[in-house]
Amino acid sequence: MRTAAGAEIFIRHSVLYDSHFQGAQINKSTTTRQIRLERRSPSHWRVTFDLPPLNIFGPHEVPKLETIIKSIETDERVKVVVFDSVIEGVFLTHYDFLAKLEETTSLPLGATGLQPLPDMLARLSRAPVVSIASIRGRATGVGSELALASDLRFASREKAILSQWEVGAGLVPGGGPMARLPRLMGRGRALEVLLGAHDIDGDLAQLYGYVNRSLPDSELDGFVDALAMRIASFDKLAIADTKRLVDIASLPSDAEIEPEWGAFITSLQRPATQARINKLMELGFHKPGDVETRLGHYVGQLGNQ
Amino acid sequence: MRTAAGAEIFIRHSVLYDSHFQGAQINKSTTTRQIRLERRSPSHWRVTFDLPPLNIFGPHEVPKLETIIKSIETDERVKVVVFDSVIEGVFLTHYDFLAKLEETTSLPLGATGLQPLPDMLARLSRAPVVSIASIRGRATGVGSELALASDLRFASREKAILSQWEVGAGLVPGGGPMARLPRLMGRGRALEVLLGAHDIDGDLAQLYGYVNRSLPDSELDGFVDALAMRIASFDKLAIADTKRLVDIASLPSDAEIEPEWGAFITSLQRPATQARINKLMELGFHKPGDVETRLGHYVGQLGNQ
Amino acid sequence: MRTAAGAEIFIRHSVLYDSHFQGAQINKSTTTRQIRLERRSPSHWRVTFDLPPLNIFGPHEVPKLETIIKSIETDERVKVVVFDSVIEGVFLTHYDFLAKLEETTSLPLGATGLQPLPDMLARLSRAPVVSIASIRGRATGVGSELALASDLRFASREKAILSQWEVGAGLVPGGGPMARLPRLMGRGRALEVLLGAHDIDGDLAQLYGYVNRSLPDSELDGFVDALAMRIASFDKLAIADTKRLVDIASLPSDAEIEPEWGAFITSLQRPATQARINKLMELGFHKPGDVETRLGHYVGQLGNQ
Repeated sequence: MRTAAGAEIFIRHSVLYDSHFQGAQINKSTTTRQIRLERRSPSHWRVTFDLPPLNIFGPHEVPKLETIIKSIETDERVKVVVFDSVIEGVFLTHYDFLAKLEETTSLPLGATGLQPLPDMLARLSRAPVVSIASIRGRATGVGSELALASDLRFASREKAILSQWEVGAGLVPGGGPMARLPRLMGRGRALEVLLGAHDIDGDLAQLYGYVNRSLPDSELDGFVDALAMRIASFDKLAIADTKRLVDIASLPSDAEIEPEWGAFITSLQRPATQARINKLMELGFHKPGDVETRLGHYVGQLGNQ
Repeated sequence: MRTAAGAEIFIRHSVLYDSHFQGAQINKSTTTRQIRLERRSPSHWRVTFDLPPLNIFGPHEVPKLETIIKSIETDERVKVVVFDSVIEGVFLTHYDFLAKLEETTSLPLGATGLQPLPDMLARLSRAPVVSIASIRGRATGVGSELALASDLRFASREKAILSQWEVGAGLVPGGGPMARLPRLMGRGRALEVLLGAHDIDGDLAQLYGYVNRSLPDSELDGFVDALAMRIASFDKLAIADTKRLVDIASLPSDAEIEPEWGAFITSLQRPATQARINKLMELGFHKPGDVETRLGHYVGQLGNQ
Repeated sequence: MRTAAGAEIFIRHSVLYDSHFQGAQINKSTTTRQIRLERRSPSHWRVTFDLPPLNIFGPHEVPKLETIIKSIETDERVKVVVFDSVIEGVFLTHYDFLAKLEETTSLPLGATGLQPLPDMLARLSRAPVVSIASIRGRATGVGSELALASDLRFASREKAILSQWEVGAGLVPGGGPMARLPRLMGRGRALEVLLGAHDIDGDLAQLYGYVNRSLPDSELDGFVDALAMRIASFDKLAIADTKRLVDIASLPSDAEIEPEWGAFITSLQRPATQARINKLMELGFHKPGDVETRLGHYVGQLGNQ
């Protein structure tokens, strides 16, 4: 079995942040971290991120999400899947930079031949099911990438924040946004999202086409529920065949997505990047607080010394 | 001469709805149904749908529209063509599901080798002429597809409704929207239009890029007239050469459009689809009234039994 | 060394406008026309168009801009370049139709093998640096093309005007807009910009995605400065590698851009086009005044005789 690349890098990385890792491990062991799959009906599923305290996504979550993606791909009755969160302030946020190396590198490549995270996202995009990201709170890094791989995205006007913050920390994003963002919003706005690395609120996300629409927070759940129930009442084959034809016009190939992960790994190896991530950690990255809440602001401070 | 595929399907189909067909036939024989071509000047043409009571498009209309498309393609002086309607509440709506089989299957494939409807739409997109859809009332199904194949689309803010309602009835749309919508509005919003199957008003259509702009209904005609007269005053070769270069960047190939019609035919054959269309017919589909006026609402009721 | 095509055409052209040329020449010799490169810091550069009276771009400007583009491509420290203007009412406007033939035809093809102007623009798009067009005043023709080749575009809500006016004068634009506009705003709006040839203000440019955003004029400079300083604080390799991956999804190839210049040259040769440009000249084209300020309006008058 092939395994995910980048072993030495993550080793070095986990050594660098070993003191942080200890604290995070305690949090993990004292809370229940799960990705819940709820079948509201045989055709209408809900996937809820409940990874306290911050819905940070790491190697522990990969097999959990993979199991869910496989169910979405293969179940004969499911027609629509909504992704949401029960963690206040967060939809799904960045990758776990404190994770133990072995937990990441022991993960096999996915069915597509891509690394596990881009593999799952590519499979979600092609599944014969309508996926909807219901975004309340931060969808940054992995969270943005999951939203971009979903078919539809709806955001809370007051509470959603989307971002690809990575360039601000010296990283290249790895989960497909360079392939997916320009196809949603054009090159100029995609470059602004990626190279500006700002926190983007619901209304700007709507203007740019980062989400389908932003809705008043009080209306988001009702809107998404009604849409999901509506689609769940439609014919599965009509959904699947129509989506497959849209894929021809709009899905990036796996070959186009593939180099992003390698660029992420390369960027992570650079001492300059390690220095930026270290500085973020010192400021409070990976802990509830202002750095996580305003990550776009803080990555703008790292290069000014 | 090759003929359009799908003969057996339409036969079965017309048998299913035979009782409905009788009534529709009476309407047709007692009113004048036409697609009028008016040459406002040698360079500025207007094509007006006048197919009472609902501007439903069927096999009778195919040769009428084909003649017009051929004129648009070959006339040496025409520079701009505006499509509009004289039927209150409708721009151009869905395909005629009551049509006699023989009238559809006897139609030859088009010049591109595509089926007649996608053939005409592909040729319109490539014609060395600026086509403008002036949308007041419902542009659903074929009407949306004609608008999408036109170069420019302007909508009445109060009175335009665009939709691809087909998935709601178990159908896959057949006239190109899976190829064309993602190129106008990105994958996410295109999937929402196609898989949500909702009625979409002028302002949402503008936000999504489904139309160039929505305008107050009182301003639509003046705006479109002024734009058409302006373009009619330009140089035909400059228009044609510029459009041809835009085509390279933005037109789907015929090969990409081609499978949509086959998917439509396949979807039409399914008993589940026939059941949904039957139920729509019982509710009042194909007759003036609430089902036609709020088709997006009614397709959302078909799967809840 | 190969030289730019179109020699005979420009000869005829410069003869036609010889009387105009005299006046323009006087203006040129009595003012300092330059494109200024200011290094605000080693990583943050500013390129300012100061080509009185109208920031018209011609063969004299080609080597000036080429030198700057080469510096942007090769400097190891620059991360962000802002393009702006010090000329009231103009960002950068159209090509110089009064220019001496020899000055244009003696210019060698660019490093990409494209003609000098499209060559520089293609190289700017691929440079490992974030380019930002800060648009106050008219960005028409070449100015629009430079903005479209830049990575990000921000416009003054009150003072920016973007246009591709060329079709209105019988010309096909030559600097890449047919390849670039549909990728930013979709085919329909791109065709409207190109075939409508209207002056487009900041808010419509934002709605269409012609610019990233339009901002109140009083906020434009502060916004662009802050963004440029932010990006200048990021890691150059992360910027370059991320941009390179966005290029895969969103940059037109040189082969797609190449025919635009040939189409421009062909269109310029036509007597009908020469007649339109002549008429524009008689009205005041190439001189400060209403024709230059409302070029979109005036090209709409040329064909009504």
